[in-house]
Amino acid sequence: MNSELGTLFLVPCHLSEDNKSNILPAYTVEIAQDLIHWVAENEKTARRFLRDMGTKVGLNDLQFSLLTKDTKPEHVKSLLQPLFEGHSVGLMSEAGCPAVADPGNILVAAAHQWGIRVVPLVGPSSILMALMASGMSGQQFAFHGYLPIDREQRKKALLELEMNAKKRKQTQIFMETPFRNDALLEDALKWLQPSTRLSASVDLTGSTEWNFSGTVAQWRKSEIPSLHKRLAVFCLLA
Amino acid sequence: MNSELGTLFLVPCHLSEDNKSNILPAYTVEIAQDLIHWVAENEKTARRFLRDMGTKVGLNDLQFSLLTKDTKPEHVKSLLQPLFEGHSVGLMSEAGCPAVADPGNILVAAAHQWGIRVVPLVGPSSILMALMASGMSGQQFAFHGYLPIDREQRKKALLELEMNAKKRKQTQIFMETPFRNDALLEDALKWLQPSTRLSASVDLTGSTEWNFSGTVAQWRKSEIPSLHKRLAVFCLLA
Repeated sequence: MNSELGTLFLVPCHLSEDNKSNILPAYTVEIAQDLIHWVAENEKTARRFLRDMGTKVGLNDLQFSLLTKDTKPEHVKSLLQPLFEGHSVGLMSEAGCPAVADPGNILVAAAHQWGIRVVPLVGPSSILMALMASGMSGQQFAFHGYLPIDREQRKKALLELEMNAKKRKQTQIFMETPFRNDALLEDALKWLQPSTRLSASVDLTGSTEWNFSGTVAQWRKSEIPSLHKRLAVFCLLA
Repeated sequence: MNSELGTLFLVPCHLSEDNKSNILPAYTVEIAQDLIHWVAENEKTARRFLRDMGTKVGLNDLQFSLLTKDTKPEHVKSLLQPLFEGHSVGLMSEAGCPAVADPGNILVAAAHQWGIRVVPLVGPSSILMALMASGMSGQQFAFHGYLPIDREQRKKALLELEMNAKKRKQTQIFMETPFRNDALLEDALKWLQPSTRLSASVDLTGSTEWNFSGTVAQWRKSEIPSLHKRLAVFCLLA
């Protein structure tokens, strides 16, 4: 590692609009408040986050570069430019922890390649909090991101997760685009075995947070609130 | 969920003795400071953590129950007793997030079974921070806990992780008991393919934190500090 280079800090942000002011530890906030250079998925939400958190530098002096799923690999090195000049950079996600379930990891990989120091900071992760809240095995787990949109493919994916959970004794974690949550849940309750355990963690850290975990048979008998357009993470263990 | 029952809060704690005072967000600390009833793996370290954090109740008035890997399933319901009486309970781990890579999940599962509200709080997770820092895929990943101790078995496990990483395009995360880190790393560098990417995150959040990520070929050429008796999490992607 070259000490003349800046450090790439991985800065988590809030999960819920209800709970923004006290969700990050001082350890994270103190480092983030000093940073001038940022890489984010969306400049507008990144600016809003930093305005709410408070920065030592004026908001107009902050420098943003964008990294999205459409960013070309050959463009990534240019995002490291401030680091080559000795400035530290903050990498931020749209929600929760950067480089997890977002395109940020390619910047982290490039930083390592150029000998730049990488430091992950502490903050909320909906994936990890959903796992904690599920009551399922936290000794062995796998995260699969988004399931397929097509209903036949999604059925196949759910049955495969169930089979893997059983075979590997491994908690399976997955997500859905918020407006498709109810359809996903309907399919899960239709196709999974009654004895399979399923959990949903919804609106984590927010005022409407809801964590439910039970067998598919229990889910079928329970009154389930609508998950439509709410951030949800699901866990499954068979 | 029955509102006459207490709430089971899942309370993360610090990862490093160097960084205890500002590693948890106010959101977590404010809830934890109010709790009288605790379930922990070790009363002594739990008391020390709460003394450092500060509690609204006198330290002598705190109530601890133990939950370890040797706790019998039939004993778990008794740990929920304060919750049945309307008191909230904090579940704590020895380091980082409870119910992840520790026995806490059986208490969470029991709580759900009895209709007790479960709320995961925000704090450091070495597993998630290692994944962030690795620069490897955060869209698909699996955590495997500790690898086998026997060297032949461990070799087999490493080659299986490498094969799974390749086949499933899934980052493989694993740990080792701190005094065996150097032996694990030696084996990994011996048996994995030169092109396989390996990362280590060591002493996360501490003053000696070290995050390194590169191909096995790069590792072999690099000067590696001793990881002996240091908390480390490894990631691998082939």
